[in-house]
Amino acid sequence: MRATVHRFTMRDPGDVSQLAAAIQGGEVNPAHIVACIGKTEGNGLVNDYTRGFLVQSLKLLLAEALCTTQDAVARSVIFIFSGGTEGVLTPHYTVFCVDGDAPAAAGGPKRLAIGRAFTPVPLPEEIGTRAQVNMVADAVRRAMRDAGIADPADVHFVQVKGGCVTTDAAQTALARGAKLVSGDPNKSMAFSRVAGAFGVMQGLGEIAADAVDEADFFARPEIWSGRASISSGIEVAENEVVVFGNAAGWSSGFVIAHHTMDDALDINGIYACLDELGIAARGDNRASGMERIACALVKCEPDARGQVRGRRHTMWQDGDINAQRHIRGAVGGLVAGVLGDTRIFVSGGAEHQGPPGGGLIALIARTD
Amino acid sequence: MRATVHRFTMRDPGDVSQLAAAIQGGEVNPAHIVACIGKTEGNGLVNDYTRGFLVQSLKLLLAEALCTTQDAVARSVIFIFSGGTEGVLTPHYTVFCVDGDAPAAAGGPKRLAIGRAFTPVPLPEEIGTRAQVNMVADAVRRAMRDAGIADPADVHFVQVKGGCVTTDAAQTALARGAKLVSGDPNKSMAFSRVAGAFGVMQGLGEIAADAVDEADFFARPEIWSGRASISSGIEVAENEVVVFGNAAGWSSGFVIAHHTMDDALDINGIYACLDELGIAARGDNRASGMERIACALVKCEPDARGQVRGRRHTMWQDGDINAQRHIRGAVGGLVAGVLGDTRIFVSGGAEHQGPPGGGLIALIARTD
Amino acid sequence: MRATVHRFTMRDPGDVSQLAAAIQGGEVNPAHIVACIGKTEGNGLVNDYTRGFLVQSLKLLLAEALCTTQDAVARSVIFIFSGGTEGVLTPHYTVFCVDGDAPAAAGGPKRLAIGRAFTPVPLPEEIGTRAQVNMVADAVRRAMRDAGIADPADVHFVQVKGGCVTTDAAQTALARGAKLVSGDPNKSMAFSRVAGAFGVMQGLGEIAADAVDEADFFARPEIWSGRASISSGIEVAENEVVVFGNAAGWSSGFVIAHHTMDDALDINGIYACLDELGIAARGDNRASGMERIACALVKCEPDARGQVRGRRHTMWQDGDINAQRHIRGAVGGLVAGVLGDTRIFVSGGAEHQGPPGGGLIALIARTD
Amino acid sequence: MRATVHRFTMRDPGDVSQLAAAIQGGEVNPAHIVACIGKTEGNGLVNDYTRGFLVQSLKLLLAEALCTTQDAVARSVIFIFSGGTEGVLTPHYTVFCVDGDAPAAAGGPKRLAIGRAFTPVPLPEEIGTRAQVNMVADAVRRAMRDAGIADPADVHFVQVKGGCVTTDAAQTALARGAKLVSGDPNKSMAFSRVAGAFGVMQGLGEIAADAVDEADFFARPEIWSGRASISSGIEVAENEVVVFGNAAGWSSGFVIAHHTMDDALDINGIYACLDELGIAARGDNRASGMERIACALVKCEPDARGQVRGRRHTMWQDGDINAQRHIRGAVGGLVAGVLGDTRIFVSGGAEHQGPPGGGLIALIARTD
Repeated sequence: MRATVHRFTMRDPGDVSQLAAAIQGGEVNPAHIVACIGKTEGNGLVNDYTRGFLVQSLKLLLAEALCTTQDAVARSVIFIFSGGTEGVLTPHYTVFCVDGDAPAAAGGPKRLAIGRAFTPVPLPEEIGTRAQVNMVADAVRRAMRDAGIADPADVHFVQVKGGCVTTDAAQTALARGAKLVSGDPNKSMAFSRVAGAFGVMQGLGEIAADAVDEADFFARPEIWSGRASISSGIEVAENEVVVFGNAAGWSSGFVIAHHTMDDALDINGIYACLDELGIAARGDNRASGMERIACALVKCEPDARGQVRGRRHTMWQDGDINAQRHIRGAVGGLVAGVLGDTRIFVSGGAEHQGPPGGGLIALIARTD
Repeated sequence: MRATVHRFTMRDPGDVSQLAAAIQGGEVNPAHIVACIGKTEGNGLVNDYTRGFLVQSLKLLLAEALCTTQDAVARSVIFIFSGGTEGVLTPHYTVFCVDGDAPAAAGGPKRLAIGRAFTPVPLPEEIGTRAQVNMVADAVRRAMRDAGIADPADVHFVQVKGGCVTTDAAQTALARGAKLVSGDPNKSMAFSRVAGAFGVMQGLGEIAADAVDEADFFARPEIWSGRASISSGIEVAENEVVVFGNAAGWSSGFVIAHHTMDDALDINGIYACLDELGIAARGDNRASGMERIACALVKCEPDARGQVRGRRHTMWQDGDINAQRHIRGAVGGLVAGVLGDTRIFVSGGAEHQGPPGGGLIALIARTD
Repeated sequence: MRATVHRFTMRDPGDVSQLAAAIQGGEVNPAHIVACIGKTEGNGLVNDYTRGFLVQSLKLLLAEALCTTQDAVARSVIFIFSGGTEGVLTPHYTVFCVDGDAPAAAGGPKRLAIGRAFTPVPLPEEIGTRAQVNMVADAVRRAMRDAGIADPADVHFVQVKGGCVTTDAAQTALARGAKLVSGDPNKSMAFSRVAGAFGVMQGLGEIAADAVDEADFFARPEIWSGRASISSGIEVAENEVVVFGNAAGWSSGFVIAHHTMDDALDINGIYACLDELGIAARGDNRASGMERIACALVKCEPDARGQVRGRRHTMWQDGDINAQRHIRGAVGGLVAGVLGDTRIFVSGGAEHQGPPGGGLIALIARTD
Repeated sequence: MRATVHRFTMRDPGDVSQLAAAIQGGEVNPAHIVACIGKTEGNGLVNDYTRGFLVQSLKLLLAEALCTTQDAVARSVIFIFSGGTEGVLTPHYTVFCVDGDAPAAAGGPKRLAIGRAFTPVPLPEEIGTRAQVNMVADAVRRAMRDAGIADPADVHFVQVKGGCVTTDAAQTALARGAKLVSGDPNKSMAFSRVAGAFGVMQGLGEIAADAVDEADFFARPEIWSGRASISSGIEVAENEVVVFGNAAGWSSGFVIAHHTMDDALDINGIYACLDELGIAARGDNRASGMERIACALVKCEPDARGQVRGRRHTMWQDGDINAQRHIRGAVGGLVAGVLGDTRIFVSGGAEHQGPPGGGLIALIARTD
């Protein structure tokens, strides 16, 4: 098994020419692609169509490269795009490939392992509930098996994309007497993220299944996973799970590490993550070790209490710029500054994903 | 001579209660106030009235405290507010006091010195020209004398606020045959900033007077001052100059340092500034040395070439968020992350103030 | 009794020079001012400080003109400003004066009558409840008496400004065991508006007191007043009520009319209001009759169902522009187009104030 | 010859299901489609990718329906989309079909005629110059012939889409010594629109060829066409021209009319256009005649002098909402209010297209 990581930039959300060239040049085998994760330059909110435009463009490219249909591509590749390249951030996407035919590495240190799993399609009334938690937890365990990871401690990042309750689905469900946690698509998206986060915690054994209590959703932000990154939206019906970790048997030239960010200023968390990768670049973002970094994944949120380290912030009160855009710009600026690179995946909406007002960082680095 | 530095936060742009309490409690003598510099929570663009609201509120407070009129306060205190507390930034203002009756320090290291000067009111046709450069250069030298600074190397930060050509003034000037660099208020504001930056360079001897060429304005961004911070607007007619440096004879408990930021990711520049202050906090923003910082002043700009360290940024193309808001959020996030404090004065519009796409940072720290 | 109506524009939210000139010139007697209602050029959302800036500026002017304090002005004049001059709208404010010493008109048609009343300060737990409804209803009846209006049918517009539950007040109230409809300031503002709207309905006899049911708040938008315009905010503690109608005994040179707007496209509603004033200008906004209009007051809202006359609108999904800004711009454009004048008071947040997705218009016109 | 007009709405910019259904149901013959013109729900500014997303989605649909490639579709159909459905506007697109095999109508009144033409690809140095004017003028005349329109008075609306100078093209051109009107893509877009407007004027004989003076571009806004609607962008290289008029020999069930709008409040202009179509609906937007309207096309702009009918507007000073978004929302609200329909094509950037601060309206109506 061999995992490879390819990072591309684009001129606009319809520009997939760099991946096209990499396929053309033989650097990327389109049949090996398992996931594409990236940032597009929309507002990252409900009416951000740059994500859909990029997905359509990639599907077109891969359908042509693989002589198949767009639907077939959608079934074999997980696309997860976060909108919003505020501040210094660069629109980009990372293509993750797995070559299942590559010979298993015999011995040697653990290397980047990638596994995937899908849940069944939840009923509308299951979105944001214990039922969705169980589904995701089960998928996390299956994805770990897919990645050949036995010990949850070897998992460093779990990306989940979950569905939500659309207006139509809500009406149908309510008509047959179902009870929904919310019939509002936006709220159900948040509930879906929360259930996904608890699902990751349960799947990784961070929380016992019988300790999961729906009453804690949103209410107890001190319950969180340091490795879960959840997005949700109408683009998917089921939950899609990608597990990233380090495992024996993989001949990847990459390793992954992660660390919690305690708040939006937690530069120490970033340095601690670099430490784990052996990149000793404290305070010097032009160090050669930085060149080893192949992918940076960050989750963050505007502190709900209205303060960052004891001082008022204005993100929630700003009627002109959404709070998520503010926090992505600020945390993106900090991480980009430390790493010396603007190709950072920074995503908001971090309920139960990292400490309240904080988040997490995961870095994939080349081993050489 | 004694300089003191007092940093306050506020609930909203009309809230001056912390300064009122400090005056009431005897911590701040209102008669000693020479300048107030801060960040308000507007958009920092033309229609940002949070600056005017705070100025009016402070004038009202000080007029009452000093039993005088608002106009008299305006003549004795320089108010410079920058709008925009994007991301993690906290609305705040720093009150600078000078007690001229404090006994001169005999010997000892140089300490924070503050001096001020005003230029005559430039004619509309002088805004953005060599004439304004000369005025500002002269005022910089007078402000240095006011601060008791002989060596330009002891100057670490020069804040200038210059006027611009209003629509009315433009029409009057054009009617009498005058030639303007621009009759557009926004463009004349930019020209005023550029002339101010060249004025600081000339005043500090960074550029020889006969090397100043109006043709270089905007055209040669590689000519810049590492200590100039210029704002402009319709609020003032003349140019107001505040010089911050370290000088003998001052019994301040503060010192100032500055450093260039090469680009928006230049974390090394920030650490270098901390090094000069003896704050050894590389990579650890919760270090006790950070508590010494009394004021942080940053100038930055979205790279005009559309790239940050070789990668595309989207700040100039965003039709929803102004580029200056983007860059303040990102650089503010980085500086706040390094310093572990969100009370950072971050201002955009850095033409000829720091390297293209970069800027500068100045830090005032307590000596103990 | 004589009511007069004076409409002023301004360069910025701190510019009260037109009113100052009118006072200076003897056109406005500052002692007669009972209310100022207008539009400022902020975003009209939580962080819109243009309203507070204008209030402070007007208080300063009137305190000086009346040789009194700002606090005394605040007790004698009701200031109600709505932020947001989207599209073609012009920042402006209308000053309403009542001369109580003017001789009562003997006979003749009913003319513009203005009355005011204040409620006690509601407890935090009363905000958004039956208790606030009763308070407002009582104040409406007192304001009618103040205006000398006996028949509720003679009331054409009731402007209410109500308080809300601040974060501090919420904590104090919860600490002593009080139950709040919401501890979130923004939600309590909406509840305060709804209670105000039901209060106006009850006060005007549009709904019987025992038919008011808290369960209907928000839930049954088909219950609405065609004459209520409610705003709320932290600026006031009690509820302030201004009633506008036509009454005998007033020697005003003005009359008022109002009409419901069924939806955001309801041009017929605007023409019907003009018809009542005898301004026959159907389809011709340059007609001389239009010059009689002294003040235009409009309430509107983005349709909550996401459609305008059966077609999808995008106001709720736009992450860049708040829905209230969208609807003010559109309805403002329509009303300004019909009237041929951009000085329109257009306010959103019209829960139970006019039909769902619609609103109301009130016009004050000169009689000659 | 038979022209038909089909208006569709969509859930999002990737939703072309209504056209798909119309093709499936036989209402629209995909081989007859000559142009698609519509509004998408982006910001309508540089980073609005909803236009590109819709174009890609339509190309995919039509390529499949016609068993051809996307490139072939692009060569046979003109796609012109304007972003920005501010306020009450509904995202929608109108599909224009021409059936060349339909028998020519013998006698009878003139009916809707549609013609198209393309110019050669202009050199970068020709963009925004006399050369582009000539190209467009020539294409307008060829498109008139294509539509069978001999008398320019029978032309009611000319939609042009022109190219611009991209950054890459500018560098290449400058390298070989060419002189550009602007190397800035945004500015060259504006110049391209202006040249297009003069081209339409010249083509329609509104201005003599030798009276066209490049010095008048932008400088003399009083020179304008009442029938030109120009957009520009990097999507096209050549100029694409669609002429809409009424002509003999067409068996369309549609007619077109247009009228100037003197300013953003010019409701009379809208009624005058309805008058020409015999829709007598003055002041009543629920009249049955309104149902005849098949397509509404509007061009408008924020008044450059900062005033609408003598009163200040705030569109140009708003740092949060672009002026074009403001004016589209306001004029869209007015036109939608008069017509009682939110499916209005409202486009800004109306240099020399209608009077300064005004614009134009064209309406296509069914004849029965």
